[in-house]
Amino acid sequence: MDIKQEIEKANEEAARRMTIGEPVLVDIAPASEVIPGMEDRMITHAGPPIRWQDMCGAMQGALIGQVLYEGWARTPDEARVMLERGAIRLEPNHHHQAVGPMAGTISPSAPVWVVENKAFGPLTGISDNRAFCRQVEGNQQFGDYSEQALQGLRLWRDLWAPTLRKALRHIGGLNLKPIITQALQMGDELHNRHSASSSLFANAMAVAMVEADIPKAEMLPTLKYVTNHNLIFLGLAMACAKAIADPAMGIEYSTVVTAMCRNGTEFGIRVSGLGEEWFTAPAPVVDGLYLPGYSAADAGLDMGDSAITETVGWGAFTIGGAPGILSLVGGTPEEALAYSREMKKITVAAHPTYRMPALGFAGVPIGIDVRKVMQTGIAPIIDTAIAHREPGHPIIGAGLVRAPLECFKKALIAFGRKYNVG
Amino acid sequence: MDIKQEIEKANEEAARRMTIGEPVLVDIAPASEVIPGMEDRMITHAGPPIRWQDMCGAMQGALIGQVLYEGWARTPDEARVMLERGAIRLEPNHHHQAVGPMAGTISPSAPVWVVENKAFGPLTGISDNRAFCRQVEGNQQFGDYSEQALQGLRLWRDLWAPTLRKALRHIGGLNLKPIITQALQMGDELHNRHSASSSLFANAMAVAMVEADIPKAEMLPTLKYVTNHNLIFLGLAMACAKAIADPAMGIEYSTVVTAMCRNGTEFGIRVSGLGEEWFTAPAPVVDGLYLPGYSAADAGLDMGDSAITETVGWGAFTIGGAPGILSLVGGTPEEALAYSREMKKITVAAHPTYRMPALGFAGVPIGIDVRKVMQTGIAPIIDTAIAHREPGHPIIGAGLVRAPLECFKKALIAFGRKYNVG
Repeated sequence: MDIKQEIEKANEEAARRMTIGEPVLVDIAPASEVIPGMEDRMITHAGPPIRWQDMCGAMQGALIGQVLYEGWARTPDEARVMLERGAIRLEPNHHHQAVGPMAGTISPSAPVWVVENKAFGPLTGISDNRAFCRQVEGNQQFGDYSEQALQGLRLWRDLWAPTLRKALRHIGGLNLKPIITQALQMGDELHNRHSASSSLFANAMAVAMVEADIPKAEMLPTLKYVTNHNLIFLGLAMACAKAIADPAMGIEYSTVVTAMCRNGTEFGIRVSGLGEEWFTAPAPVVDGLYLPGYSAADAGLDMGDSAITETVGWGAFTIGGAPGILSLVGGTPEEALAYSREMKKITVAAHPTYRMPALGFAGVPIGIDVRKVMQTGIAPIIDTAIAHREPGHPIIGAGLVRAPLECFKKALIAFGRKYNVG
Repeated sequence: MDIKQEIEKANEEAARRMTIGEPVLVDIAPASEVIPGMEDRMITHAGPPIRWQDMCGAMQGALIGQVLYEGWARTPDEARVMLERGAIRLEPNHHHQAVGPMAGTISPSAPVWVVENKAFGPLTGISDNRAFCRQVEGNQQFGDYSEQALQGLRLWRDLWAPTLRKALRHIGGLNLKPIITQALQMGDELHNRHSASSSLFANAMAVAMVEADIPKAEMLPTLKYVTNHNLIFLGLAMACAKAIADPAMGIEYSTVVTAMCRNGTEFGIRVSGLGEEWFTAPAPVVDGLYLPGYSAADAGLDMGDSAITETVGWGAFTIGGAPGILSLVGGTPEEALAYSREMKKITVAAHPTYRMPALGFAGVPIGIDVRKVMQTGIAPIIDTAIAHREPGHPIIGAGLVRAPLECFKKALIAFGRKYNVG
């Protein structure tokens, strides 16, 4: 086999692994209980590795919030000092099988979604295929550390998550593939729009809570939280995407992207045949629409692990099937269809189950090939939210962004060096 | 004002009334309690008036089933004899503020959705603006009178409907406009596809049941029924559409269609300025896809009151925004978009709240103008299910159908005669 055939074969295998993923929600547990390597006085964050002093305002704000939430400091200033002097260990989520939206901060006591990819297990050689994601809300993860922002985290920790956990354990886990399949036929793109998946998930958990005999005092507020939170599935979709993408890591010769993420300063990608190495470039500016009172002048750069959804073919890759999101991110239905068609040109497969009715039930494009990105000059499109450039603010907008080509160029050069190509 | 201006003004008023509808689910009650004129030994049915002997097989089968369900006969033969000798009074749903899917049969003990249009009331001169629709299932309403088919009706009467009623009364009714608005942005067209609306409705009723302290033995099976029934909103959408369309009836000079319905033998329409008169033509053949084991040779003709959804701009009128339905009814996303655009040519307004993201958030086309239909030759398109031509079968398929132009021609002639036009 020549090198080209080796690469094709490896990429087919990467796409095959991503395609057969069977994500199941198996727990909702405090990070310290489940995330490997999670320690006391440690916070994991979105994107590739970064030092406190290089972080953007929103991520610094989120970390301040997370320190206050854990009770490690009593005031924002105290928290900032602790962070500045390195008293809190900071590591990327991706180094701990985790992902998080926007700043994506996860600390020990924060309950996370635990998704297991049942297509893999000890027999396949990929034994630990669980992935974790933090809960999604519109404030603290955007850098807001106000009391109101922290209250959402506390209610999640003390009421909503433990109640959902009891119900979930009672039913022995929840298969998320049917929800994802249906939601993609109901106008969700599973990055910024989760109206359908959140509603379907709420119904499943309502049945589970009733079956589990949860007392009314816990069930009613939790049910109201879940049925009114039309982005609750984002954390689940991200954990699913991470659990689906991880088994495709480390396939020799494969040029398929296994992670895309941003820390608000840098954009980073990982490539299957290149293992755990990050290929980074400056985080791009998001082209989007702003909430009242905010403008592009307030915007931070692209941030969050949520591009793991595009990595497995959702988000902007399937935006042609989710025109409802355009009121949030801008653009026309025709442009949205064009994005989904364009992404076919830089991917290696179409998913057999996850389909887009608006594109004649075509499967979502899966497996970004670094070679195809560089050959065509077409950068992956990502459908994302916008945080403020300064700490202390909730969400300010949403929009579309292209992954920087520089990451793919660096990866291809490293690939050439490792495999003696070109 | 000349006649043309009178008509334009009247049509604007008809569209205005349809546009401001505020449908609220106020009860789920046995037909005998709420439907005006519902009597013992009486069954109402879909479509314009028709005699037993002129009915198609599916409608006869549904009536046999309804008689058995009420316990008025012990065997299908006994039921048939009763129906043949006129022992059961048969009247159209539309003569009783009601609608029903497919055969659409409603009998006294059957619980119906009760929707009130809160935009109208005693002050507007339209005092009774409630509408009723029967529960939706895939068997008896299609003409199947097997024990299994009747069991669905009995569980609805004895368990599911009374449980939902208790919960609904506890919360004082449920506003359906927000659900409809959201569902149209989530790939529902509200005639054949109700995945989103049914899920959102289930979310709301789950909260209501928990709030109302429904015992687990009633709540759990009801919650399972509602969360697994992805067409449960069809009956609600039909009751909403009827409640929205009725206030537009009887506006002098208006050429706007206020009802389209079919009894499996004839297709009938009503026109605002012509009051309660029916303009009929033979029911057309549906162009569709069939379930395994069935073909076009088995198909009955177009049937059901469900075209009330198209009458208010949903169903095939908004199918461009609901490509997920194409796996059931056939066709391409491009054709679906073309249907929705075409319907703009025969309607008088676009709804300000009910919008289609796939068409750049255009409002759904509302208020079919009989004149425009005849001027353009474009017949309203309807997105429907298919029943068997013989009694005793469940659903056999689904597809698209055009309303017969003959109805519109007859209506326009009657209009000319009444208003001295042309």
